Amino acid sequence: MAKIIECIPNVSEGRRTEVVEALVNVVRTVPGVTLLDYSSDASHNRSVITMVGDPDGIEDAAFKLAMAARDNIDLTQHEGEHPRMGAIDVIPFVPIKDVTVAECVELSKKLGERIANELGIPVFLYEDSATAPHRKNLAEIRKGQFEGMAEKVNDEKWHPDFGGNRIHPTAGVVAVGARPPLVAYNINLSTSDIKVADKIAKIIRERSGGLKYVKALGVMLEDRNIAQVSINMCNFSKTPLYRVFELVRVEAARYGVHIIGSEIIGLAPMAALIDSAEYYLQLEGFSKNQVLENRLM
Amino acid sequence: MAKIIECIPNVSEGRRTEVVEALVNVVRTVPGVTLLDYSSDASHNRSVITMVGDPDGIEDAAFKLAMAARDNIDLTQHEGEHPRMGAIDVIPFVPIKDVTVAECVELSKKLGERIANELGIPVFLYEDSATAPHRKNLAEIRKGQFEGMAEKVNDEKWHPDFGGNRIHPTAGVVAVGARPPLVAYNINLSTSDIKVADKIAKIIRERSGGLKYVKALGVMLEDRNIAQVSINMCNFSKTPLYRVFELVRVEAARYGVHIIGSEIIGLAPMAALIDSAEYYLQLEGFSKNQVLENRLM
Repeated sequence: MAKIIECIPNVSEGRRTEVVEALVNVVRTVPGVTLLDYSSDASHNRSVITMVGDPDGIEDAAFKLAMAARDNIDLTQHEGEHPRMGAIDVIPFVPIKDVTVAECVELSKKLGERIANELGIPVFLYEDSATAPHRKNLAEIRKGQFEGMAEKVNDEKWHPDFGGNRIHPTAGVVAVGARPPLVAYNINLSTSDIKVADKIAKIIRERSGGLKYVKALGVMLEDRNIAQVSINMCNFSKTPLYRVFELVRVEAARYGVHIIGSEIIGLAPMAALIDSAEYYLQLEGFSKNQVLENRLM
Repeated sequence: MAKIIECIPNVSEGRRTEVVEALVNVVRTVPGVTLLDYSSDASHNRSVITMVGDPDGIEDAAFKLAMAARDNIDLTQHEGEHPRMGAIDVIPFVPIKDVTVAECVELSKKLGERIANELGIPVFLYEDSATAPHRKNLAEIRKGQFEGMAEKVNDEKWHPDFGGNRIHPTAGVVAVGARPPLVAYNINLSTSDIKVADKIAKIIRERSGGLKYVKALGVMLEDRNIAQVSINMCNFSKTPLYRVFELVRVEAARYGVHIIGSEIIGLAPMAALIDSAEYYLQLEGFSKNQVLENRLM
């Protein structure tokens, strides 16, 4: 059984197609790694690359991508809506198969050290790799962005984990870390009143006292004239989809509103769905080993 | 993306461990084929072997297994509770990934011809490979068993598809065919009255006017003192698990009985569970391509 890790680097280039293609081609050439997806957003001026592979291959691909981003992207010339602090801005590692979070943490530290030493880019370890609680959240690390980073890293609280206190002049700094798979999951309501979606989002999300590992906000789907609870499931094995779905259903009922559908955006590991099937079918003693595909990979 | 076919040959030996091991070792040595499971039943005097592989590998493994079964099993000396007509009794092919039922039908015909020509064992094509409606059902083909087969094949209705009308003196005949994946699925009821399980089984199964592709009967779980609806889901993509679960729930309610749990026996393709998650989570526009693992294999 092969170990599989997913890596979803975000690079600060979403406009120059030839640069994005060059970066993606770096990934394509690494043995043991499969490019699953990439997408660029011009207004964000940012691209997200999704790749999977064995631990060695995925480390190699991430390192080569970081080098190519450093050589092709100049943050002193960069503008875009999305906050950013590096040419390669963030490199998350996600355990997919026969790999623990701890192994992904190790990998992130190994890669972080290489990026600092060999590419001259200081590295912050974040999420499950963070070396202090205040450094877990990427948004906190990135506050001040590239323009404020040269100064910020002098603050003892924000010394990089690798590479010292001098940011790379054009490539800035990068966050590297391990995190559980994230599922983007939206629930559509039978109402056009966004206040209902807002209220439900507040009830279900961790930040305002709801379910752990859940981020949520109310949004309006203008084309369908319906309100939606837009959700990031940050650890679906600890807080599964069905629990969020059922809690939204229950809370919506108070307003005479029901769920008209839900959607998964992008990719989701099969376990995110199988957990929910297990719940609703009341499966007894079911093991993931009974899933035929788990025996094949 | 690799094509994957599952093959679940049943051989008429469940007592002589050394023979079963010899047969299983044949499968183990074929490149491109993975042995997933094998289990022997002494009272049935029969073993079930589960293997997966690419089309060429799986054909090769099935052929070599048929040869080894012919050379090691003598049906004139065989007794056991399970009906049987051949040393290798039945060879079903099941499409798992990037393979159609039609391709499995082709494979079954190719293998059938080889078994007849090279091993001297006449072959019946059954299930989706059957050449006439009365030859689809394995139980109908096998009626009369090994002992009655020499005579039965002279009946025009029961001429073998390959190999002529003379059965192999010790290996009998074999059924080869393509069929959809089968899921063994049981639903446990909050009653110790088997008549309730019997009545529900009658309502849900195809044979007595219920859901197509569903076989069911009521059984008693003596150790737990509960009644169970024991089900074979013969085509879960056309009649999915959730539909059977919900119909059992609805019918049980008439007796004041509810479902206390369900169970999947053995292996099930992930799609069998993901279909049910899609239903209960009311997923809109979901594609199997969004399942990460489907991109990896």
